[in-house]
Amino acid sequence: MAPTRGPRAKKGLLERLDSGEVVVGDGSFLLTLEKRGYVKAGLWTPEAVVEHPDAVRQLHMEFLRAGSDVMQTFTFSASEDNMGSQWEAVNTAACDLAREVADKGDALVAGGISQTSLYAHHKDEVRIKKLFLLQLEIFARKNVDFLIAEYFEHAVEAVWAVEVLKESGKPVAATMCIGPEGDMHGVTPGECAVKLVKAGASVVGVNCRFGPWTSLKTMSLMKEALQAAGLKAHLMVQSLGFHMPDCGKGGFLDLPEYPFALEPRVATRWDIQKYAREAYNLGVRYIGGCCGFEPYHIRAIAEELAPERGFLPPASEKHGSWGSGLSTHTKPWIRARARREYWENLRPASGRPLCPSLSKPDA
Amino acid sequence: MAPTRGPRAKKGLLERLDSGEVVVGDGSFLLTLEKRGYVKAGLWTPEAVVEHPDAVRQLHMEFLRAGSDVMQTFTFSASEDNMGSQWEAVNTAACDLAREVADKGDALVAGGISQTSLYAHHKDEVRIKKLFLLQLEIFARKNVDFLIAEYFEHAVEAVWAVEVLKESGKPVAATMCIGPEGDMHGVTPGECAVKLVKAGASVVGVNCRFGPWTSLKTMSLMKEALQAAGLKAHLMVQSLGFHMPDCGKGGFLDLPEYPFALEPRVATRWDIQKYAREAYNLGVRYIGGCCGFEPYHIRAIAEELAPERGFLPPASEKHGSWGSGLSTHTKPWIRARARREYWENLRPASGRPLCPSLSKPDA
Amino acid sequence: MAPTRGPRAKKGLLERLDSGEVVVGDGSFLLTLEKRGYVKAGLWTPEAVVEHPDAVRQLHMEFLRAGSDVMQTFTFSASEDNMGSQWEAVNTAACDLAREVADKGDALVAGGISQTSLYAHHKDEVRIKKLFLLQLEIFARKNVDFLIAEYFEHAVEAVWAVEVLKESGKPVAATMCIGPEGDMHGVTPGECAVKLVKAGASVVGVNCRFGPWTSLKTMSLMKEALQAAGLKAHLMVQSLGFHMPDCGKGGFLDLPEYPFALEPRVATRWDIQKYAREAYNLGVRYIGGCCGFEPYHIRAIAEELAPERGFLPPASEKHGSWGSGLSTHTKPWIRARARREYWENLRPASGRPLCPSLSKPDA
Amino acid sequence: MAPTRGPRAKKGLLERLDSGEVVVGDGSFLLTLEKRGYVKAGLWTPEAVVEHPDAVRQLHMEFLRAGSDVMQTFTFSASEDNMGSQWEAVNTAACDLAREVADKGDALVAGGISQTSLYAHHKDEVRIKKLFLLQLEIFARKNVDFLIAEYFEHAVEAVWAVEVLKESGKPVAATMCIGPEGDMHGVTPGECAVKLVKAGASVVGVNCRFGPWTSLKTMSLMKEALQAAGLKAHLMVQSLGFHMPDCGKGGFLDLPEYPFALEPRVATRWDIQKYAREAYNLGVRYIGGCCGFEPYHIRAIAEELAPERGFLPPASEKHGSWGSGLSTHTKPWIRARARREYWENLRPASGRPLCPSLSKPDA
Repeated sequence: MAPTRGPRAKKGLLERLDSGEVVVGDGSFLLTLEKRGYVKAGLWTPEAVVEHPDAVRQLHMEFLRAGSDVMQTFTFSASEDNMGSQWEAVNTAACDLAREVADKGDALVAGGISQTSLYAHHKDEVRIKKLFLLQLEIFARKNVDFLIAEYFEHAVEAVWAVEVLKESGKPVAATMCIGPEGDMHGVTPGECAVKLVKAGASVVGVNCRFGPWTSLKTMSLMKEALQAAGLKAHLMVQSLGFHMPDCGKGGFLDLPEYPFALEPRVATRWDIQKYAREAYNLGVRYIGGCCGFEPYHIRAIAEELAPERGFLPPASEKHGSWGSGLSTHTKPWIRARARREYWENLRPASGRPLCPSLSKPDA
Repeated sequence: MAPTRGPRAKKGLLERLDSGEVVVGDGSFLLTLEKRGYVKAGLWTPEAVVEHPDAVRQLHMEFLRAGSDVMQTFTFSASEDNMGSQWEAVNTAACDLAREVADKGDALVAGGISQTSLYAHHKDEVRIKKLFLLQLEIFARKNVDFLIAEYFEHAVEAVWAVEVLKESGKPVAATMCIGPEGDMHGVTPGECAVKLVKAGASVVGVNCRFGPWTSLKTMSLMKEALQAAGLKAHLMVQSLGFHMPDCGKGGFLDLPEYPFALEPRVATRWDIQKYAREAYNLGVRYIGGCCGFEPYHIRAIAEELAPERGFLPPASEKHGSWGSGLSTHTKPWIRARARREYWENLRPASGRPLCPSLSKPDA
Repeated sequence: MAPTRGPRAKKGLLERLDSGEVVVGDGSFLLTLEKRGYVKAGLWTPEAVVEHPDAVRQLHMEFLRAGSDVMQTFTFSASEDNMGSQWEAVNTAACDLAREVADKGDALVAGGISQTSLYAHHKDEVRIKKLFLLQLEIFARKNVDFLIAEYFEHAVEAVWAVEVLKESGKPVAATMCIGPEGDMHGVTPGECAVKLVKAGASVVGVNCRFGPWTSLKTMSLMKEALQAAGLKAHLMVQSLGFHMPDCGKGGFLDLPEYPFALEPRVATRWDIQKYAREAYNLGVRYIGGCCGFEPYHIRAIAEELAPERGFLPPASEKHGSWGSGLSTHTKPWIRARARREYWENLRPASGRPLCPSLSKPDA
Repeated sequence: MAPTRGPRAKKGLLERLDSGEVVVGDGSFLLTLEKRGYVKAGLWTPEAVVEHPDAVRQLHMEFLRAGSDVMQTFTFSASEDNMGSQWEAVNTAACDLAREVADKGDALVAGGISQTSLYAHHKDEVRIKKLFLLQLEIFARKNVDFLIAEYFEHAVEAVWAVEVLKESGKPVAATMCIGPEGDMHGVTPGECAVKLVKAGASVVGVNCRFGPWTSLKTMSLMKEALQAAGLKAHLMVQSLGFHMPDCGKGGFLDLPEYPFALEPRVATRWDIQKYAREAYNLGVRYIGGCCGFEPYHIRAIAEELAPERGFLPPASEKHGSWGSGLSTHTKPWIRARARREYWENLRPASGRPLCPSLSKPDA
């Protein structure tokens, strides 16, 4: 394995993707910081960037160490409709934190916006675009490297977001929070991808709501549709870090365990290595995670794709690949776990014999 | 519910326990920091205190916010036999970090030692006690508030540890990493407890290796034996944060999922509330966690026992009790989850239909 | 509930179905008699009709008592290619046994043929039709009431079977052993149904290979296609009596548990009541079972549809509906099980914590 | 493997056991005939012997073919307190049926009595013994080969039964329906065994209520106690044919699935081969089954112990050992299942992903 990558001049997002590089995204902020005590479930707003900047900085640092090439501003739901007057301070502080950490490594800063609370009821294009524009103005002032429009249930609103963001002249990535059945109006994944690229997105894909395997299935539908339409775009996937084969159309929100009993569903690092490999094989080159992706899951992506990338992330100094750190254990049956085959084939028990393996969505 | 506790003069450990207060311990450092990228599995040593003090400080902060009354120095395995010449710097830095954070709240600092690598092979009392004494000298110089001897498989070595630590004149807590079947030489939990109290421990109990319910069963055996022996001591439990009903005598090390596929076994916050309540009902008053206990699990202890204690921890500002943060969700079936009965009765699915619910220990 | 039906003149199959009656099929012979010691797994041939006629008669009797309106001759795979010279004696004896028992009640006798061993390799229409014709001649001589062509993987061979059988002038029912993905050549369920009706089948549907819910899904596809094609035919379902959500295209043969470890998958009587109700609601009027359907499963169909049919089967004299037989138990918690709601909502444990809930097909 | 055993002069029960032979018991009548439509759950009385003798004879025949060396009269609960005036006709007919089938092979007839409905409330030794005596008089008149007192929850009542039965001068076997925790008054398994032997039983053990592994654990306690007491007796086990690791003291009655949703717990033939081997290794020589034991389960006992016994049962003509009947299947992945290792290691899926693997007893 090649040594850890040293410092070099930063290339932009498209420069990286166009040259065939893998871009490793970052992971979960809301759910991870909820467990650390800084985010309130239900609201899911990122006021922690002003209330507890050390906690947010530390999480950025962990993702950087784990191999993330992108520090996404912690600005999910940080539009004026969700956060009131606090929105401006939050977006500003989030940009500063992301930049501070990104510059400790080779990472880019991505300004992130997400669906508004207005669309479901009003569908008022002017008001919604205005909200996006307000956030964009801060991102532009703070000179983020590129922009992400993520977590859109409706293709229409996602297209509006892309239309606003592309005005910045920076690259725009856009991801829907949809599964193979498509968006809330029945727009298929393929149609979504085509609309977003036509609206100006350079990178399209999915994030959140669905587990790794479902998200990859959705990505294959997007890929096919783009090919069929003769469109070129980079592909991006940031799935949940949870096993979710029982999701219905609404994704994990509708499962009875959401959001306070998802523990048994958390992916292992080995699951995520498989996800990274399958995403890569599918042609996806921007690979990260959403809710449930802890730093070690991001490291698993970076380690799985280290042969292609030529380097390991900093945090691999604390991680023997495929369990090799156990090779000196005093107990022989634990030493026997220090190999790839062992972890690839293990089917881990839940320790919960009174619980089922799947649930029925509530919706 | 009473408001969050304000600053006040710090009382000592025994002052608190003798007056009937609950002392909330802290949670997992090794496994948590492994996932954050700062500890190497297999070695499980705490060099992060010198290599990445910000990461360790942040975790202390999260436990403080979650309600921990104790900042335990991150000195697990930090004796000379495990860490070589680095041991002194590590113990010193760990004390400083714990004190820095403890003084942001009402928490006490506990200097912690654990079983040596020597006992299994040499059983050399003089050498082993010397190792304990070296750590104790740093703890004494740094003026920790009390001492913890934890994670002992053998009652004999634990007694040696207590004998060394009590020379400091500070209170000593001692916990074995055993289950109901007792230590590696067949010493029962009750016999262990009696020996430790007779050796000078003011607080006795168990930590690590076994899940919440098994650990509480072990505690009930310790309690009975102390009563039968007419001994007075406070009781302490810091179990794993994992569901482990399938453990054999060797605990979680022998389960095939250890240490890289334990995810499906992670306890929910609701599981930990039950654990805290049962521990309290059993008469245990020092209640914390070991591997797998994340900050939100510690918060669950503090929230469950808030009625008895009269205050909530700081991190409860970001947590509605029993899911109440969902009460304003737009989807009615998610709003319906904003109640105690829902989470208490939910049997969460693993999302892994190809996996079993229990494993056979490897040993 | 109406009393058990007394003797009356027998109506023919189509007379019953055309007037809207439900026809209850029978259940499993091969797997049931394998467990009773009279059929060899692997070969799955019905020589028991000559070797152990008492055992076969007894099973017919049990199905009659359970409510079956059809005694299907135990002639599965009893064509010359599978049984050599024994074929003629087997077919003859099977007809006699079925008739003997049918005439103890109001049941009809159905002569049954199934796919040949030739089709997969030779596709020789003349030879294959000759095999069918040989069986038909015995059925005609023994004056069966109608004919069933069942367990066909290929629409082409099923059509050949129907073409031969309809020459008898008796009603022909035809069922494929396919799932929603269609036959081995990719012919969809809808296309299969249309072909079979056009070839002369009065009743079409599926049997074997797939579980109840999958089979009903296939039936809904057949129904839609027949409607779309403007064809009239009665619908028939005889699914497995096993839970099989993990089947691939090849059905239960490809699951690792086939055929000697299917026990945990056996449906309860309550599962079968749901199946009968859903089949009925879908418009299916010939409802029976295939492998895994024991007599009490057939009784469950007859009991579920007793309100529509106006009578209970004889074996219901030994069965309180919805567990009412428990209402006098001495233990109150067992008495509490004597109600419909209890059994409808119970999610029965496997008692096998080391086993998964689903398997991956082997193929 | 030796050929199937031919006819020979019948040896008595003790002659067989004393010479070290294995005696294979029979299996489930009540639950099996409930599923076939002849027994009513809740009442669990054997009126089928007079109402439907063919059905009972057939089941006896299946057990004989499967290798049972004992035809136990179907007289469970057939004492006057449970069956009123019908009791005499039932006991008489049951003896005739058992003898008729036994004489088609080398099997012995055992007259069986079980606990009364009186003991729980009255404990009236005179009345209870009178009930036993009435049954015994019929068994004596019909000249059964030996007697079984089975399914006793209370050691006291079982002792009374033995005291009555031994007056016949025939060998008496006695089994309790208890687990390792002992009888309803806290009499341990070991104490039960000692009492029964002292009362005159030549064979002691357990039947019903608990699964195979639990029953064998109880047997090991009985064996130890007999050895410690210096008593000689043969050991007998007839466990449930269900996986029941979650039973409490009351056994399977208290599990929520009893009696109408036990399907997922049914043992495979391979499970029963393990049970037979472990029973044999423990020194048990009378090995059979109770509720849930179908004919093929009894065959599994006879096949597992065929090397020791020197012959296979008649029904093995329809059973290739360890799945060898699949060795000629056309699909290679099914042929691959034709070996011992495959079936021994398979962990069969339940096909029920919404169900747990264990239940909590209701009591």
